Amino acid sequence: MSEEKLPKRSENYSDWYNQLIQRAELADYAPVRGCMVVRPYGWALWENIQGSLDGRFKATGHVNAAFPLFIPMSFLEKEKEHVEGFSPELAVVTHGGGSKLEEPLVVRPTSETIIGYMYAKWIKSYRDLPVLINQWANVVRWEMRTRLFLRTLEFYWQEGHTAHATYEEAEEETLRILEVYTRFAVDDAAIPVIPGRKSEKEKFAGALRSYTIEAMMGDTKALQSGTSHNLGQNFAKAFDIKYLDTNNELQFCWTTSWGVSTRLVGAIIMAHGDDQGLILPPHLAPIQVVIVPIYRNDEQKSLVMPVIQKVEEALSQFRIKVDDREEVTPGFKFNDWEMRGVPLRLEIGPKDVEKGSVMAARRDMPGKAGKSFLSMENIAEEVGELLEVIQAALLERATKFRDENIHDPKDYEEFKDTVQGGWAFSWWCGDRACEEKVQEETKATIRCVPLEQPGGEGTCIYCGKPAKEKAYFARAY
Amino acid sequence: MSEEKLPKRSENYSDWYNQLIQRAELADYAPVRGCMVVRPYGWALWENIQGSLDGRFKATGHVNAAFPLFIPMSFLEKEKEHVEGFSPELAVVTHGGGSKLEEPLVVRPTSETIIGYMYAKWIKSYRDLPVLINQWANVVRWEMRTRLFLRTLEFYWQEGHTAHATYEEAEEETLRILEVYTRFAVDDAAIPVIPGRKSEKEKFAGALRSYTIEAMMGDTKALQSGTSHNLGQNFAKAFDIKYLDTNNELQFCWTTSWGVSTRLVGAIIMAHGDDQGLILPPHLAPIQVVIVPIYRNDEQKSLVMPVIQKVEEALSQFRIKVDDREEVTPGFKFNDWEMRGVPLRLEIGPKDVEKGSVMAARRDMPGKAGKSFLSMENIAEEVGELLEVIQAALLERATKFRDENIHDPKDYEEFKDTVQGGWAFSWWCGDRACEEKVQEETKATIRCVPLEQPGGEGTCIYCGKPAKEKAYFARAY
Repeated sequence: MSEEKLPKRSENYSDWYNQLIQRAELADYAPVRGCMVVRPYGWALWENIQGSLDGRFKATGHVNAAFPLFIPMSFLEKEKEHVEGFSPELAVVTHGGGSKLEEPLVVRPTSETIIGYMYAKWIKSYRDLPVLINQWANVVRWEMRTRLFLRTLEFYWQEGHTAHATYEEAEEETLRILEVYTRFAVDDAAIPVIPGRKSEKEKFAGALRSYTIEAMMGDTKALQSGTSHNLGQNFAKAFDIKYLDTNNELQFCWTTSWGVSTRLVGAIIMAHGDDQGLILPPHLAPIQVVIVPIYRNDEQKSLVMPVIQKVEEALSQFRIKVDDREEVTPGFKFNDWEMRGVPLRLEIGPKDVEKGSVMAARRDMPGKAGKSFLSMENIAEEVGELLEVIQAALLERATKFRDENIHDPKDYEEFKDTVQGGWAFSWWCGDRACEEKVQEETKATIRCVPLEQPGGEGTCIYCGKPAKEKAYFARAY
Repeated sequence: MSEEKLPKRSENYSDWYNQLIQRAELADYAPVRGCMVVRPYGWALWENIQGSLDGRFKATGHVNAAFPLFIPMSFLEKEKEHVEGFSPELAVVTHGGGSKLEEPLVVRPTSETIIGYMYAKWIKSYRDLPVLINQWANVVRWEMRTRLFLRTLEFYWQEGHTAHATYEEAEEETLRILEVYTRFAVDDAAIPVIPGRKSEKEKFAGALRSYTIEAMMGDTKALQSGTSHNLGQNFAKAFDIKYLDTNNELQFCWTTSWGVSTRLVGAIIMAHGDDQGLILPPHLAPIQVVIVPIYRNDEQKSLVMPVIQKVEEALSQFRIKVDDREEVTPGFKFNDWEMRGVPLRLEIGPKDVEKGSVMAARRDMPGKAGKSFLSMENIAEEVGELLEVIQAALLERATKFRDENIHDPKDYEEFKDTVQGGWAFSWWCGDRACEEKVQEETKATIRCVPLEQPGGEGTCIYCGKPAKEKAYFARAY
């Protein structure tokens, strides 16, 4: 770790973000433009995200599989909106085994097409439905402006692809997954996302309807953190995914797709981090508790270390690390683990040994307020409780910050100010023209039309015509 | 599942293998030549393989990370043997985002080069060593003759890449991983692999020395099932991976790499399967126990189903499935789960309910011999024991089969017969010319020079000159 201080969030948010990722060793730039290397600490965080989500998917009846990286170019062309949406972003393999290929292969930007092809082969009858498959995979989109975790050429994600007998079942699945994403974000990532519907303009290329969870970052910009699409029969018709219904008649299936990606790591950094570095929610932190031994000489060391070993054993149910490095000072270690966002630090010195207590320091509350003494005897229970307190405090703080930065501007003049440093929750007539004008004039886009509506009617923030729904408008990553 | 019978293993091993994979729904052919779709049942098996190996890697101090899919072509050219080895197999991206790339990108066939580049950036001093990183990833090799799981254009694997201060540490790591692979294969996959050294001819392109675990398949052919390479300083010199030693002098690192892949699924199929289909070792089976309710009418059903629910709860520590399908007969279900290789089937009917017992049928012992009654009261313990008995029986059978098919032919004439239907364990002078002649004349290659040697000396099976080591010769996949 470098000795230099991190740039202040309030002074240069973008530099703060980029340097934090390097200093906390979450990721690094790869020697291929726009690609990233996810370093072990960052990958361990992603593995915990995966673990939580994978459990939730399996609990709702989904299974994992793996579909090919390469997709024939002709597949993408079968769904008109889909190919228009993804064409500019494709990486194309033209040569294999030393020869030019007859048909170029696309490196998957997403897998609706090739999975649709396989589903058409596998699904014969209503008895085969629903098909509820997910895959954890890497995908490639040739982005021009990239940023670690938020937008990289190659990124890691899960993509669920399901097929159903009816529209209703597909819509139900789409919303079930939106709820899974919301629960994960709120309960494990401590990010109070807002679930809602994307506008027609912002929906997935080829979808009937897209849903999203939108998160507010520490600079008040929005981050789309997960999407769930009802694809209608668009891909079923393009790939001939049909089933025999109970009357022995052929019907097209209704399909969905949904995904979250390593972008979630960016969301966690920006939702919780501070000027000292990363702050990780205990449910996902690769290291939940770091123990730093405090001693000045060998005598003290021989007093402290056996106790630390006992505490380590007592805390074996947690993800724990004893930092017993000899070549650096405790102060250096404190900074190091603060940068890496470990939720709880325990310090054990000769006095603690004497008193049978342990000094605990919360990462989310720097200074005295976050310090307390835990009883050595009851250490596992007290640590467990404290981690849950930290988890809850992070969510509470992020929710407060979000709510303080969502406004209901009284007119478009005020709206223009609002979206420079916050979100506007405003009536929208549903017209794409208004949405585009707002974006043109303010750079704010409709993040979502939330599922929870205030009810009643209002007038469109842009055109003043009657409006039935309110939408969140914000500048976004 | 189709009603047709599987081809007999003894009559057409290759058809048996291909059809089994389709019927058991392990994998399917993708619409891109040589690529596969791993279906949910096959992927669940791979996830269990991953889980076991990942735990073993972490227990030996390794961490996971993710490196990019794309590698600049120039990187591969930095290590001469490496580029010669992999050039014929490369998939090349020439276009991205609608434009021709300045430098073509290779889709990784393996990641020594790009990881070497990053290690050169990260490693500064002896304090940074060892670096012990693994990644779970997809790789692409443009193979001409492909076969599901054994050799596909894209496959899934883990690749470990480590850097060390000394030759000795690198060699120790290489052998440590070989031992991890061996323990996994023997203890979890129930495959009695033979660990040994690859000949110079068969070693990894760019390695100083390669080790392998070799498995015997049901047709006596060999399958290389995992490899561990001591790369010496070859990649460290090509990528300038240096560290400051304790004397403050710059030294090149010593690196290793090692991998196993979805090929292991093929190994499990061919090591244990029979004419009824797959047989999975209980430690890795996605479903360890299937419960089939037996009833003829609603009255019997209402007697049986509540008991099945109780048994299911009692067995919650196992991976379990209750097959309560109404539209198919118990006999159909038996065949279905036999095809899928579920190690243990429990049948519960009205008589069992009356007697407080459960009929258990072992997949590895068809017919009466494999059937027994378990006590309902003690079901979890008895099932646990039976699964371990099955696990041990599979290993014992595979070991017996292996040992019966390894011979020590007295001369080259006998050797030529031996390797048509088994392995030869023969003295070899170490000369590449003999190795090549043997391959030319018999199609058998040196699978490995095993770590365990008989001691003493002999004469080379081919040239008759003095030989210090014995090697396994066999035809291989």
